[in-house]
Amino acid sequence: MTRIPFSELQALLATVFERHGTSLAVARTLALNCATAQRDGALSHGVFRVPGYLSTLKSGWVNGQAVPVVEDVAPGFVSADAGNGFAQPALAAAHELLVDKARNNGIAMLAIRNSHHFAALWPDVEPFAREGLVALAFVNSMACVVPFGGNKPLFGTNPISFAAPRTGPDPLVFDLATSAMAHGDVQIAARQGETLPEGCGVDAEGNPTCDPAEILNGGALLPFGGHKGSALSMMVELLAAALTGGNFSFEFDWAAYPGAKTPWTGELVIVIDPSKGAGSNFAKRAETLVQEMEWVGQTRQPGDRRYQQRAEAMELGVAIGEDELAHLRELARER
Amino acid sequence: MTRIPFSELQALLATVFERHGTSLAVARTLALNCATAQRDGALSHGVFRVPGYLSTLKSGWVNGQAVPVVEDVAPGFVSADAGNGFAQPALAAAHELLVDKARNNGIAMLAIRNSHHFAALWPDVEPFAREGLVALAFVNSMACVVPFGGNKPLFGTNPISFAAPRTGPDPLVFDLATSAMAHGDVQIAARQGETLPEGCGVDAEGNPTCDPAEILNGGALLPFGGHKGSALSMMVELLAAALTGGNFSFEFDWAAYPGAKTPWTGELVIVIDPSKGAGSNFAKRAETLVQEMEWVGQTRQPGDRRYQQRAEAMELGVAIGEDELAHLRELARER
Repeated sequence: MTRIPFSELQALLATVFERHGTSLAVARTLALNCATAQRDGALSHGVFRVPGYLSTLKSGWVNGQAVPVVEDVAPGFVSADAGNGFAQPALAAAHELLVDKARNNGIAMLAIRNSHHFAALWPDVEPFAREGLVALAFVNSMACVVPFGGNKPLFGTNPISFAAPRTGPDPLVFDLATSAMAHGDVQIAARQGETLPEGCGVDAEGNPTCDPAEILNGGALLPFGGHKGSALSMMVELLAAALTGGNFSFEFDWAAYPGAKTPWTGELVIVIDPSKGAGSNFAKRAETLVQEMEWVGQTRQPGDRRYQQRAEAMELGVAIGEDELAHLRELARER
Repeated sequence: MTRIPFSELQALLATVFERHGTSLAVARTLALNCATAQRDGALSHGVFRVPGYLSTLKSGWVNGQAVPVVEDVAPGFVSADAGNGFAQPALAAAHELLVDKARNNGIAMLAIRNSHHFAALWPDVEPFAREGLVALAFVNSMACVVPFGGNKPLFGTNPISFAAPRTGPDPLVFDLATSAMAHGDVQIAARQGETLPEGCGVDAEGNPTCDPAEILNGGALLPFGGHKGSALSMMVELLAAALTGGNFSFEFDWAAYPGAKTPWTGELVIVIDPSKGAGSNFAKRAETLVQEMEWVGQTRQPGDRRYQQRAEAMELGVAIGEDELAHLRELARER
């Protein structure tokens, strides 16, 4: 392991993305997202994702040059067509309008369609909480989760992410896959030859398995928490795809694009201004809740581990494998 | 077991509530809610709840005569002070304004505070889906769930409810406690001397137990799905209490009101008009998802069991214990 300054990793990643087919604007957005995940110790969505991004760009499955089209649909509703590009540039393009609408109306939403999301979801909501807003995001992905009571994969890992301000320096932020595990974590476990806990997935025959390789090779994940996680996963399909005009996790077919890894679906972001109405002291109230959570023994709050790693990385540099870094530098020289 | 026409049960319950301290308007709203749950087979929130309602009214803890005050706070934000009454009359009073705002803005929310919620949550969202809207509701309750990693109860059972229209006659509706079990189901299991599955709760010493009586007598429930359910429960506290101006589940103290059973908290309802933007064929898209869910073997969709029981009850009458019905008739005569 070695360490590299955050800004340097960000610039390096931007060069890598641009050299492999994205516009400068898309490269910068993806680089910030990817470097942020690596910095915060969210390794399954950090530099680990670069090969998947590049093979997808090479396959022609995603448009790395796409310019998102943002539409002002209604006083509380922003719509964005990502143009078969990544979701994050669409979110960035709509950010200001979405925040304005939330502040004016109390609540607003952004429906992104025709988009690829290959990243962690918490970077999509944390910035809103830093502006004093509450945010919720839903994204569907690719069929790899068997609905409760079913026998074939249909849902994606379909994460739900939430961010809320508190009076302390960092907001409360969680990002949870509605599958028993995140797909990236299954990939990492497979690569490291690890065994998973019970109840995470099934093999190609639909039998329970704790072997991550069996889940990845023809098997499937299960929802977390039985029928409840399954219901939430269904909700994510409805919000992120049916509501936005994007694909369901089972609808897209990338068979003609060998190397494609990014799900072509949709994303919904809901932003609330808590200063409207009676909850004008929201951040202070959130702080009260956190204090009580600590009081009853929950010493680590959602987001805390990332903030710790972030603080360390901002002081000492972002931790990264020496081989990984050397490979990134090689990729940055390639055309 | 006997059967009684739905309208007769509804009228009987309204009389019971009015005879025990509510206004006629509140009596009608609670009666509809309670009769609906009984009719649909949601027994833990049906007639089973009447003694709790009445002992709470008798204690003076809740104001059965409260007239909710609805405020138009912003183009997408309705606020309601339930006046220390029940949440459902506040929801009913705000319904039309909330729907108008959702249709005009694409999304709107209702923040109810100073309210008591002692009922199932799905009756609060299902009507919106029948009007072609998507709805989400969150309500916090009373400290009986230990946060993940903690050792004392802090969260309520904190349900999340969701409703979405489909082209079929009945919408997709789920209502899930973020605790491993709903409190009402623990009470029923205790009354029937049943043993619970592993992982539902702890006893008064914080040790895991499968005995519902131990959970109710000084013990506590656990969140469903480990840290993920716990994060969602925290989110419900923030949305239903911090955002609305209501109490957290651990804040109210009913010690001076023996017989009080209803949590004095808040509720948040988010309503979305899916006809705005690209998702104009939402109900059809939802139907596609349901067909695929059936195709992969999930034969029962969220809400289906209730709809079956409802259809049977509308034809044959609502099933109710003979003793229960006799007791209701007695209560309806009392003053």
